[in-house]
Amino acid sequence: MARPQTDIEAARSQLLEVVDDLVRQRGSADISMTDLAAAAGMSPSNLYRFFENKEALMEAVAERFFAQKIRVMEEVTSSALPVCEKMYQYFARRFLLMVEQYEADPDLLKSYLEIGNQYFEVVRGYVDLGDHYLALIVAEAMEEGYFEGLSIDQAVSLINQMVQCYTNPDAVIYIGTSKLKVEKLAMIVDTIFAGLNGSASAQIAEESHIKIVS
Amino acid sequence: MARPQTDIEAARSQLLEVVDDLVRQRGSADISMTDLAAAAGMSPSNLYRFFENKEALMEAVAERFFAQKIRVMEEVTSSALPVCEKMYQYFARRFLLMVEQYEADPDLLKSYLEIGNQYFEVVRGYVDLGDHYLALIVAEAMEEGYFEGLSIDQAVSLINQMVQCYTNPDAVIYIGTSKLKVEKLAMIVDTIFAGLNGSASAQIAEESHIKIVS
Repeated sequence: MARPQTDIEAARSQLLEVVDDLVRQRGSADISMTDLAAAAGMSPSNLYRFFENKEALMEAVAERFFAQKIRVMEEVTSSALPVCEKMYQYFARRFLLMVEQYEADPDLLKSYLEIGNQYFEVVRGYVDLGDHYLALIVAEAMEEGYFEGLSIDQAVSLINQMVQCYTNPDAVIYIGTSKLKVEKLAMIVDTIFAGLNGSASAQIAEESHIKIVS
Repeated sequence: MARPQTDIEAARSQLLEVVDDLVRQRGSADISMTDLAAAAGMSPSNLYRFFENKEALMEAVAERFFAQKIRVMEEVTSSALPVCEKMYQYFARRFLLMVEQYEADPDLLKSYLEIGNQYFEVVRGYVDLGDHYLALIVAEAMEEGYFEGLSIDQAVSLINQMVQCYTNPDAVIYIGTSKLKVEKLAMIVDTIFAGLNGSASAQIAEESHIKIVS
């Protein structure tokens, strides 16, 4: 008889805790299914009942890593906040979560980032999901007349670049939280709403190109 | 009799070429004075006549690495370009140099970045110099009424954060030149000139803080 789904979920969740302990102990060194089974005190064949392969395990690890951030994105985009405030919260709340994670255990965050680089195909879906939620906020702002002359994709790309220090976990590590402040992020989001549009800028790009070539 | 200064300069310059070859061959592995002397086919005591210690050598390596970028910053800040265009050129020309360097030899740039991290006290002076030149452009913009309500330091910090993708060599590596384009940089600089000021944003920061806490 198959175990009820809830038991399976509980066992998976416990196994992800064991993965977390292994990452704390061993850093970003690759964790094999055999390592995990041994650390969890179960046979490899038993482990495969919970994660059918290494990829399924890494997907579950990513899901756990991103869970809180996804909750924030869902909450903020479905809120009734004014759109400028919504964009601020969208970036600020995730930034604060990242800072919290970093300050609690800098080495653990670094290890997860390295694991994320090794399994980037798993992480990519979460990056795209972030862009999807940002596109919802951008579309709402456009309905109110912001970002005139830009497509949603152009605006998403430019906004991502301008707030990159606050979304890239590496930036928290190398720029540091003494320079990265939510107050500054608020001013950057405000600058984006007050200044970002497609009309004037195109000219500069063309002019500048000529000057660079000359 | 002391050698004429020009001979010393020529020998130093040749030795820096030897360092460059060593970095190409060995990556960011630390180069000792003994290694360099051997690679240059001279005795260590002879080498010390050109660089009195390892620190003096690393300073010369940094000077060589940043020379072109400093020339660009000097040229742009002393030019008669309109201030918005000046800021664009200030970032765009250095970004294009970095892309060129990266595309010519990605591994070599990565090795120099790692060496720069190891000798960050040497690099710091160049980072500060970049801020100094940016402050000159910001001050000129303020005279024309831009960035109202911000101090020069605040504006420099916010601008650095908004264009970070285009100044941080790591960003070229992990974001890639398909997403980082001077046309986008031009739109970001334009957004900064159209939207960055200190008055409206302060309110958002305060409001947002309360919402984050709640």
